Amino acid sequence: MLLAVGSVALDSVETPFGARQDALGGSATYFAAAASLLAKVSVVGVVGDDFDLEELDFLRRRGVSLEGLSRVPGRTFRWKGRYGYDLNTAQTLDTQLNVFERFEPRLDARARTADRVFLGNIDPELQLRVLEQVERPKLVAADTMNYWISSKREKLLELLPRVDVLMVNDAEARQLAGESNVMKAAAAIEKMGARAVCIKRGEYGALLVSGSEAFFAPAFPLTGVVDPTGAGDSFAGGFLGLIDRVGGRDLPALRQAVVMGCTIASFTVESFSLDRLRDLSLPEVRARFESFRKLTEHEALHASIA
Amino acid sequence: MLLAVGSVALDSVETPFGARQDALGGSATYFAAAASLLAKVSVVGVVGDDFDLEELDFLRRRGVSLEGLSRVPGRTFRWKGRYGYDLNTAQTLDTQLNVFERFEPRLDARARTADRVFLGNIDPELQLRVLEQVERPKLVAADTMNYWISSKREKLLELLPRVDVLMVNDAEARQLAGESNVMKAAAAIEKMGARAVCIKRGEYGALLVSGSEAFFAPAFPLTGVVDPTGAGDSFAGGFLGLIDRVGGRDLPALRQAVVMGCTIASFTVESFSLDRLRDLSLPEVRARFESFRKLTEHEALHASIA
Repeated sequence: MLLAVGSVALDSVETPFGARQDALGGSATYFAAAASLLAKVSVVGVVGDDFDLEELDFLRRRGVSLEGLSRVPGRTFRWKGRYGYDLNTAQTLDTQLNVFERFEPRLDARARTADRVFLGNIDPELQLRVLEQVERPKLVAADTMNYWISSKREKLLELLPRVDVLMVNDAEARQLAGESNVMKAAAAIEKMGARAVCIKRGEYGALLVSGSEAFFAPAFPLTGVVDPTGAGDSFAGGFLGLIDRVGGRDLPALRQAVVMGCTIASFTVESFSLDRLRDLSLPEVRARFESFRKLTEHEALHASIA
Repeated sequence: MLLAVGSVALDSVETPFGARQDALGGSATYFAAAASLLAKVSVVGVVGDDFDLEELDFLRRRGVSLEGLSRVPGRTFRWKGRYGYDLNTAQTLDTQLNVFERFEPRLDARARTADRVFLGNIDPELQLRVLEQVERPKLVAADTMNYWISSKREKLLELLPRVDVLMVNDAEARQLAGESNVMKAAAAIEKMGARAVCIKRGEYGALLVSGSEAFFAPAFPLTGVVDPTGAGDSFAGGFLGLIDRVGGRDLPALRQAVVMGCTIASFTVESFSLDRLRDLSLPEVRARFESFRKLTEHEALHASIA
């Protein structure tokens, strides 16, 4: 079973292709929508009393356990952002932690036995507190961001040795490592204790570095990117969902997991909010995964060329 | 035989890792240095009387014909540029056409029988004039840039139907097509007549689009990028060098060609000027080509996942 801790949020997003107000969002939501196509998922998080829990019915129908999601008095976490034609970078206009401000993750007996854990992009102190409650996780993946890297660096460095795969974007990897070259940054983060580093590069795909091994998956070339919100979290969901499904954590499994992450993220960005993920089916995912293979496949050089 | 027309230049380059004054450069030079590892190359171009032809001895030793390179009174083409820590984009500080201003490409009998042609990034009028002199080319690749796209659009549109592979970067593809989505831009350029479009994405690799087929190769993840100058032209050299060597132009050949282009370009950027290309050997290239395969290889999904 896969445990995800992170935000369940209401997002207001503007892109060149439209806008949405208070639409379903949040790292745990995107993660669970993606991962539940492949594995059993439990969500730990909090929403306010302005949140309509029926919005999550589609997750329940996919077997996601929301036992760990509490609903408390107050307003739900809200994020407001804008993307220009360069859909790679979001401009954050407003972040309201609201009920998340006093969030105290408490895992029930079942959540404590999780096999694999995704620590969504929240305060590293909370990430640590969740991890302490999980008895014997086989694999831990964590996301973080510039804000925590600068304001909670100590706690983040305490977390890293307990993380198998740190998932960050180019800029975050550079900032955390203090190193502009992405490969050197990944090596530096491994020295800080993370077993592997997965660098998300938006429309350019994702790179996994583990020791002397590197693996690269392109983003699926799409003609209709509408809203990149949630791409990173649904990438993580596809990644951990596949690992949980196949049970391994060797390099071939990690490689497949990166491609699965890119595959599901490529659906996410085709619509606003979780619209495309709501009724996404595994056969659709499988077909695009196969196209991914074709996208990078090429033959070895003929022996005469040497 | 492979014919390349383009600049043989003296570059002054500044990167965060050092600077060079009047170092050997130019699109035809980088192209020839790369392609000559795999095929016979003839260069058409012009230098001034300030140019020391012995600088090109390493190309002659690799069998490059410089019969078509004329040396005339005046100063050699000069480019001056700077790269910041984001090594993806050059800031052009100065361009002096010098002897290139009155360049009249004239092909000798041998050059006219070339099998494959690379039209380096020069005035589309000159590109057309070269092409008119080649009797029956099997494959034509062309590069261009923002300056020609805006100032010589008509001539460029006249050229495109005679081009098999247009090689441009993201921004150039977007500008030429008037379309921000890269896949849509490639489709629009195909409609303008190019048989295939190869989009170079700097540190993010290269994408080849031809009809409904897409192929993606990452840039080789390097820990020591020193100077990106010439990456695009040596990519073109590796690309056409491989096509000329294997003789095909079907999709499997084009895919291998993209990877070969990325492979040789990854050596180019490890040093200033043509320093790394000077003594690069085919076995070194072959070994890195194989690492490239490993970089993107992954297994198909198990049949149980559906």
